[in-house]
Amino acid sequence: MIVSRSIRGIRRIIQAVKKKGQVIGFVPTMGALHEGHLSLVRAARKQTDYVVVSIFVNPTQFGSGEDFRKYPRTFSYDKELLEKERVNLLFYPDVKTMYTEDFSTYVEEISLSKYLCGKSRPGHFRGVCTVVAKLFNIIQPDVAYFGQKDYQQAQIIKRMVADLNFPIRIKVMPIVRHKDGLAMSSRNQYLASNERKVAPVLFEALSLGKRLIKEGHKDASFIKEKMVEHIKKKCRSARIDYVSVVDHKKLVDVKVVKGKVLLALAVYIGRARLIDNMLVSARKRKMNDRQEN
Amino acid sequence: MIVSRSIRGIRRIIQAVKKKGQVIGFVPTMGALHEGHLSLVRAARKQTDYVVVSIFVNPTQFGSGEDFRKYPRTFSYDKELLEKERVNLLFYPDVKTMYTEDFSTYVEEISLSKYLCGKSRPGHFRGVCTVVAKLFNIIQPDVAYFGQKDYQQAQIIKRMVADLNFPIRIKVMPIVRHKDGLAMSSRNQYLASNERKVAPVLFEALSLGKRLIKEGHKDASFIKEKMVEHIKKKCRSARIDYVSVVDHKKLVDVKVVKGKVLLALAVYIGRARLIDNMLVSARKRKMNDRQEN
Repeated sequence: MIVSRSIRGIRRIIQAVKKKGQVIGFVPTMGALHEGHLSLVRAARKQTDYVVVSIFVNPTQFGSGEDFRKYPRTFSYDKELLEKERVNLLFYPDVKTMYTEDFSTYVEEISLSKYLCGKSRPGHFRGVCTVVAKLFNIIQPDVAYFGQKDYQQAQIIKRMVADLNFPIRIKVMPIVRHKDGLAMSSRNQYLASNERKVAPVLFEALSLGKRLIKEGHKDASFIKEKMVEHIKKKCRSARIDYVSVVDHKKLVDVKVVKGKVLLALAVYIGRARLIDNMLVSARKRKMNDRQEN
Repeated sequence: MIVSRSIRGIRRIIQAVKKKGQVIGFVPTMGALHEGHLSLVRAARKQTDYVVVSIFVNPTQFGSGEDFRKYPRTFSYDKELLEKERVNLLFYPDVKTMYTEDFSTYVEEISLSKYLCGKSRPGHFRGVCTVVAKLFNIIQPDVAYFGQKDYQQAQIIKRMVADLNFPIRIKVMPIVRHKDGLAMSSRNQYLASNERKVAPVLFEALSLGKRLIKEGHKDASFIKEKMVEHIKKKCRSARIDYVSVVDHKKLVDVKVVKGKVLLALAVYIGRARLIDNMLVSARKRKMNDRQEN
């Protein structure tokens, strides 16, 4: 595995790879790698010829009160993991390399970014789009991999790629969970051990929401209420940012569950803001139901 | 010359060209071509292997009261001109191809865009950056050519390319003028014949500004005053949007002329909003001057 901290270094290598006609797979990360990231790397390893991973804790996607400085940085551990996965190239730039002093260009998606995490983290997705556009132009991958845990992010990146015509395919890989259901996240490291014990409550709430929908419940308010109740009962200290039932494409709240919806939530447990989500298809009405109504 | 209206068609061709290792030169235009555009095309023809031109009147860079609908469209004439210049590929998309219904991603430069035309045309440079980013991702050129007549635009594009790490070199080519000094522009077509006669007053004002600076004048207000005076005297009906003396890199107004400055103006003559500019280096103080002060 080659490690490069400079854009010029990366460009030189990428050019040579492209000349050979190899297909480039790319996994952008902020480091503090876990099995979720590694599932993306493994998909890239399987599906493409040359696997590039980036590790960059991107300041422009953190708000002023957020955890940019405290975000876990575990470079040498990450590097070992990536070597084991037979990654070809690791891009590990510092902030000055990515953002020069007179930096003044941003990429912004303005529709999907309004909802869910976009509400409580203004500017977050602008930072994400900007850094991903930069990384795309530096790495020039054929395929880029994102995790479904950041569902909204993945949708926004897909939108950006379509809108700005990046010649890149986006693949979204399933959420990887601990055995107790907690979604893997670098921010799980923030959890004290008692907090870690109750953290699966988020997955439980999503599962409850899913069960209610599968049982035929259609009223989104009712479903959300039950999910919130569950979280509060099991974890009194949880502070709920949002628990939402949204259209899985447009990300707008639905009142009545119909077709495919996304159950999504963001909850503070201690100082960790955790997110999780689940795609659910509503039960189709049977002929009988329809006749009755 | 191949003409393609579809992004897919362009991608197929570009891929084949890249496989051959040819260097791609790109000239984005809004059509209504004149010698200014052709000078860019000729530079591309000389300096690169495969020349791509786009013709697309981009709606997102026009304000609501502006001339999007009336902007001159002269496709068959343009096509002939480009064939004569031995252009390889002409991309001529329609609006629906470039902007799908759910389009929601924009590229915005927020520093250089605040000044000059950015003040009177809010959103203009956002539209320019967005469409140029799209075209760059579709054409994937090695070199792209812009005219100095749109000096601010060229600076913003350079900034965008640097900030977002597009693997593209930007070349800015000199302003092409009519014999009487009027800068070539598609919008000159809006001028009635009596307006066309006085339109060189813009170039004259820039030349006057330059002469004053070369004579040793340093006070930007004085220089602008003289330029405005000249325009108003020769063309009573002219409505001045701005006459500015700015830092040639940051585009901010200077009070005292020092080093290299840009004289820039935007003036309505009839219904045509015309822009023009001139780079001027201030006379260096001689040893004698310095000792005297």
